[in-house]
Amino acid sequence: MLTSATNSLVKVFRRAFAEGVTRDGWLCGEGPHFLEEALKTRSRAIVHSVLVSADAAEKHQALLARLPAEAELAQIPARLFHQIAGTRTPQGIAALAELRSLGLKTVAASRNAVLVIACGLQDPGNMGTIIRSADALGASAVVALAGTVNPFNPKAVRSCVGSIFRTPVFASQKPEVVFKVLRDSKVRILGTDPKSAAALSSADLRGPIALLVGQEAAGLPPEISREADELLSIPIRAEADSLNAATATGIFLYEVARQRKFKYQP
Amino acid sequence: MLTSATNSLVKVFRRAFAEGVTRDGWLCGEGPHFLEEALKTRSRAIVHSVLVSADAAEKHQALLARLPAEAELAQIPARLFHQIAGTRTPQGIAALAELRSLGLKTVAASRNAVLVIACGLQDPGNMGTIIRSADALGASAVVALAGTVNPFNPKAVRSCVGSIFRTPVFASQKPEVVFKVLRDSKVRILGTDPKSAAALSSADLRGPIALLVGQEAAGLPPEISREADELLSIPIRAEADSLNAATATGIFLYEVARQRKFKYQP
Repeated sequence: MLTSATNSLVKVFRRAFAEGVTRDGWLCGEGPHFLEEALKTRSRAIVHSVLVSADAAEKHQALLARLPAEAELAQIPARLFHQIAGTRTPQGIAALAELRSLGLKTVAASRNAVLVIACGLQDPGNMGTIIRSADALGASAVVALAGTVNPFNPKAVRSCVGSIFRTPVFASQKPEVVFKVLRDSKVRILGTDPKSAAALSSADLRGPIALLVGQEAAGLPPEISREADELLSIPIRAEADSLNAATATGIFLYEVARQRKFKYQP
Repeated sequence: MLTSATNSLVKVFRRAFAEGVTRDGWLCGEGPHFLEEALKTRSRAIVHSVLVSADAAEKHQALLARLPAEAELAQIPARLFHQIAGTRTPQGIAALAELRSLGLKTVAASRNAVLVIACGLQDPGNMGTIIRSADALGASAVVALAGTVNPFNPKAVRSCVGSIFRTPVFASQKPEVVFKVLRDSKVRILGTDPKSAAALSSADLRGPIALLVGQEAAGLPPEISREADELLSIPIRAEADSLNAATATGIFLYEVARQRKFKYQP
């Protein structure tokens, strides 16, 4: 049932568009792709509200018909939608979805856990690309420590192409809590350090591991680097500068998957 | 010798800021990092002109002192610099550098050639990240086919963090010419296809090779895919969507380097 939106719903969306999440922690995404991905992964995402402009409601009829009965569907004038969406070319359809997540402890306790721990990364595009790689290459979760870009940032969500619905993501975690969980679950903590003599491809990457990913330019802060059981490098040419943080994470996860012979656990 | 800029030099920079290159094909870059990288690689880059604002001239005195005698150095008011630079936070210093490049034939003839051929890629950030990975992981060159984003696009140059000075880059090449050069030099042509049963890690990646990188969403166009001697996939989870194009290229180049035992040729 299509109703016209109340002022309070418009307000919730306006705020969520800007911040990526609502006060309840529901994810906000613009465009039909976001809603499709949310509906595809009902075991992990609950769609609560959908906001459409009149043209979009017609265009995306088939998609809207697949909404669960409990979901709220409201229509607003296209002009108002464009005004609150903030993106340059809004597609006239947006949704609020609640992500159900396992606890960090449950994820870390898995026999084949591969956790990516973002420690200070700043670029939302890089964050989204890392979540996308984690999903594709079979990592168990992406954890963002406090001081790291919010993985629910709208730009990060756009860059991850729906992966956020399939891979557990934890935002703004306290380092001491995360490292305690990892130690308690006997997860090996691996850091990246371009200066390390231990090459990624020579390391044994089987068993539960966590990979620490640092800030784009500065790398891992020393107080985080200290927590690593091993520091590994991706060998690069002497004259070269470095790899992009998301590319380096992708290579790391590829090497993990290669050593595990690409047998992804569910 | 610091002179005030002529109108014609300001015009050349204004145009180059917008397009990334001058009519002569000289690369334009903003910020001290670009100039530093150009000066570091004198065998491959010739700095022709430098434009500075008054504050920046003082701040970057040491850097400017390292300019070759033939280089033109001109100062303009900060306000004018900001107006023509176009970036949000211009750093008051910009340079025009000519890149000396080997011919494509010479690059392809190398016994250990690894060429990245971008076939339709559209995002300048991805292009810059690919050039950065090519530099770091020892690829011989990056070739952009006609219809692909210009690798000298200012955003691509910013994303590649100086790698463009170390790795030969060819823009807007005719596919038929590139494929003829590759065939003549007996370079094996490898395409990426997520549906291929041949996994990257099982392929033999030694000897001269070229890697075809497709468009972000659509992948390789069929007429290009047809040119490949082999189509390889990076195994990903069945539920996942795909990898980012730059991440996939980084993984490919990592696997090449791993199989070659990271012995980079100069």
